[in-house]
This record gives sequence, C-alpha cells and structure tokens, in this order.
Amino acid sequence: MKISVLRIGERLVRDDRVTTHAALVARAFGAARIYMSDIGGSIPRTLDAVREAWGGDFEVVPTPSWRRVLAGAPARGERVVHLTMYGVPVGEAAPRIAGEESILVVIGAGKVPREVYDAADYNVAVGAQPHSEVAALAVLLDRVQQGRELDAGFAGARRRIVPSARGKRVVGA
Amino acid sequence: MKISVLRIGERLVRDDRVTTHAALVARAFGAARIYMSDIGGSIPRTLDAVREAWGGDFEVVPTPSWRRVLAGAPARGERVVHLTMYGVPVGEAAPRIAGEESILVVIGAGKVPREVYDAADYNVAVGAQPHSEVAALAVLLDRVQQGRELDAGFAGARRRIVPSARGKRVVGA
Repeated sequence: MKISVLRIGERLVRDDRVTTHAALVARAFGAARIYMSDIGGSIPRTLDAVREAWGGDFEVVPTPSWRRVLAGAPARGERVVHLTMYGVPVGEAAPRIAGEESILVVIGAGKVPREVYDAADYNVAVGAQPHSEVAALAVLLDRVQQGRELDAGFAGARRRIVPSARGKRVVGA
Repeated sequence: MKISVLRIGERLVRDDRVTTHAALVARAFGAARIYMSDIGGSIPRTLDAVREAWGGDFEVVPTPSWRRVLAGAPARGERVVHLTMYGVPVGEAAPRIAGEESILVVIGAGKVPREVYDAADYNVAVGAQPHSEVAALAVLLDRVQQGRELDAGFAGARRRIVPSARGKRVVGA
C-alpha cells in the first residue's frame, strides 16, 4: 500500500515537537511522505538526520496549500482517510482501507473545517475520545497494515538495531 | 488489565504539548493514571476539562521521583513494560504482556538511564526506528488489549460521540 500523510492546521510552528512526532511516525509506520504547510525550521533538519542514520527515502514535502494537496488526491489515485474522533470506528474501517492501493491520511491539529469531512472517502475514529493525532496516525497505519510495517527494513541505513531484551545493541557506525 | 503509565525525563515542561498528548493517550487507551514529575501547569487543567466532559476517572499523579514509582511496581503487583526502540518487537511481546494482570508502562522523553532497562520486566520496541513515545504507547496498549480498549465507555460522561461516516454527531450537553 502506498501511503502519504497530510498534516493540516494553523500555527504548526507553535507545535514544532508534535509535528516532528507526526512526521517521524509517518516514516516509521511506512508512509512515503508527509505534506505540511507552515513547517517549523527544525523539522526538515530532524528528518534529514534520521534518514541519514536510519535510511529510507521518506520526504517532508512543504506545501503552500493543504487544500490543493487534498483536492489532488483523486488525480493521484489516492483515497482520502481523515482521522477524526467523530468518524467510523477504526475496527470497522481498517479492513476496508487495507484493500486500497494508495491512501492519503489527513491529520488535523485542532479544529478541522467541514470540507475535509466532505472530501474524505473514510472519516475514521481511533476511539471516540480526545487524544492525539500522532497516536491516531500510528494506530491507523498499524491496523491497516496488520503490523507488517514494523518489520520493514529501510534501505541505505547506516545504523540498525538488533532487538534486545535488555540494553541497546546497534550495528553500523 | 490494570494499566498505569509513568512518564520519565527531564525538561517535561518544555514538552508540554507532547506530555499532554501522552496523558490523553493513556486515558483514551484504558490506563487508570499517569505518573509524572515536573508537570507543566496546563496539563492537569486540560485533563480535568476532558474528564469533566468525556467522563471516566483517569488521574494525573504528580510524583517527586520517578525512581520511587518504578521501584514500587513489584509491591503494587505491577509488571514493568518499558517502551524503547532497542527492545523486543511488540509483535512478540504483546501476546505475553496481554496475560498480565497489572502493568506499569514506562515511556521516556529523550535518553533513558540504564537502570530503567534493568528494572523492566519487558523492554518492548514498537518498531526499531525513532518516532514518538506517544505513538508507541498507543500501539502497545492497542495490541495488548486487542483493540477492545477503544470500545470501552467512560462513566459519567456529559458528552458522547455517535460514530458518523461524515460530520459530527454528539449527544449530551
């Protein structure tokens, strides 16, 4: 499955660390890219450093308009999955989403305009309680890929972890 | 399963929003409490407001010493689950953890001292890639409860969401 993530919302710069978490989760859970407007300075640097050490070709794609990215999803062959606590339970939605070839997962910081609900092919709730778009993204991607995403390798990694019951084992420089 | 979460690390105040996400995720995914030292001012207020509207009796427990909370786990009958990218894959660990009656899930912000690895009954990796302790917490709790946690009700809620394919439906005031 091809996965892209779109983070929308204003004042993302204020949420630099949460936004960094969102980008790192997108990468670690198998997305190819995250689109963001209003990117704080440290985020591309952090992701560059992670890619340099841990591999893969995940991209942070700056965009002047999230509306344009959202509107372009059909032309790119993507189905739109909007994460919202008001949506259909992930337990119902995930098996259907798992059958899609290409998805754009939309996560909002704060209040999301009605047009996103209307544009979405799936409005999905990871629990009907307020929590975290970072957590919702991780659980959604884990469910639709049945956990396989966590075993995927990252090409060109300079460092790789050897799983360990106690302590840290890393190979590479 | 009884679940508590312990967030450790310095400078949590700087990470106010990430820490708030961690607390909200703990609540939404079925934990009873989160222990934290060094709590920023807005976190207890945010969690109070969430409990007031959405119910349940999740607690934010301030602690002067995370070491004391960790050391007290055996006396409280808790098994310690430390989330770390260096640990055993969650796919292997989760089925075993699911058999425990009571767990203390430890999440770190930044570098975690060796003593935590040694004190843990389970060092668990939600992927061997750097991402987010908030995401790792959500996936761990989702896996060990097989998704049932997302269907749980919260007693005393004034507001409740009616799942919806499009838009927002909320009952209550």
